[in-house]
Amino acid sequence: MADSEIEILIKAMARLPGLGPRSAKRAVLHLLTNKEKTLAPLRRALESAEETVQSCHVCGNLDTLNPCRICQDQSRKAADLCVVAGVADLWAIERTRAYKGRYHVLGGILSALDGISPADLRIAPLLDIVKRGEVEEVILALSATVDGQSTAHYLADKIKAAAPQIKITKLAHGVPVGGELDYLDDGTITTALRART
Amino acid sequence: MADSEIEILIKAMARLPGLGPRSAKRAVLHLLTNKEKTLAPLRRALESAEETVQSCHVCGNLDTLNPCRICQDQSRKAADLCVVAGVADLWAIERTRAYKGRYHVLGGILSALDGISPADLRIAPLLDIVKRGEVEEVILALSATVDGQSTAHYLADKIKAAAPQIKITKLAHGVPVGGELDYLDDGTITTALRART
Repeated sequence: MADSEIEILIKAMARLPGLGPRSAKRAVLHLLTNKEKTLAPLRRALESAEETVQSCHVCGNLDTLNPCRICQDQSRKAADLCVVAGVADLWAIERTRAYKGRYHVLGGILSALDGISPADLRIAPLLDIVKRGEVEEVILALSATVDGQSTAHYLADKIKAAAPQIKITKLAHGVPVGGELDYLDDGTITTALRART
Repeated sequence: MADSEIEILIKAMARLPGLGPRSAKRAVLHLLTNKEKTLAPLRRALESAEETVQSCHVCGNLDTLNPCRICQDQSRKAADLCVVAGVADLWAIERTRAYKGRYHVLGGILSALDGISPADLRIAPLLDIVKRGEVEEVILALSATVDGQSTAHYLADKIKAAAPQIKITKLAHGVPVGGELDYLDDGTITTALRART
């Protein structure tokens, strides 16, 4: 029923993560039913983001400035470098306001299953940065999954080889704040018990 | 962390049905990480849909033509008029290829809870069409919900008053094709039993 322009829009929407063909169709009908109030603002927001947002050439963050706000911020400690898999993780850490150093976005994690090898990630620029000698501590803020931890292991080896004086740390494992012990997996409880303070 | 352009885009995305703030952020990161391959096609699809797609002034369908393809199609029976709540329902019926008449899109259903009264729906144009005398049968293809059925009841009364000779039908209730009896609600089974053929 839907003719070409509508079909093309549904297909473009369905390619977004979290939307399937059915929810994409629902979203498109919502947009087309009230074009002025729903479609036009989204189209304008996409246009301006397309024009202005870019990947920071220093850390890999997304921002309208390049280098990004964080890299330009002189009040941030250049001695601390937090390595994250993606921009979403960087934003999650920034939301806490608990970290005042710089970042390095890898652009993914190593994964044999998904065919992601060290050459696909921003590892060479990371080693260039640590070799420059400004960084004193690298925080490997990667997910507590098998792939995340093997990526952390690989990076720790590479960083140690490139700059042996650098301190390498990882996020602490333990009971999530507000988490009920009863609902936690054995691995987390064991780790939290061993690392008790 | 996200600066204005990114925030505006996330907010515009989060307004889509089926996407919350978190999935909108995920979708926006996906779009911004590879702008040429993901953001640009979506922006172009929105642009051309915004320019070309309009609501058919006869039936209320969405199409690049006005009157829409269905209203312009002379091979379709003008004597059959199928009343649907929205364009999604029209598309669902078209997908079956089982119906060869015209449509009338109400633009919603009556709902005391959502504050949708007869004046909010395209009921006056529907009565104008049936008064013209071309239509012989009106199929009220509305959802089998309380609101859907009370809307159907309301419309049937209005159509009978405006054009008493018109045949008014509803979609049959019964066991969905492929449906297992064991998983069906009692109401559906009772209806299917009474309407057995």
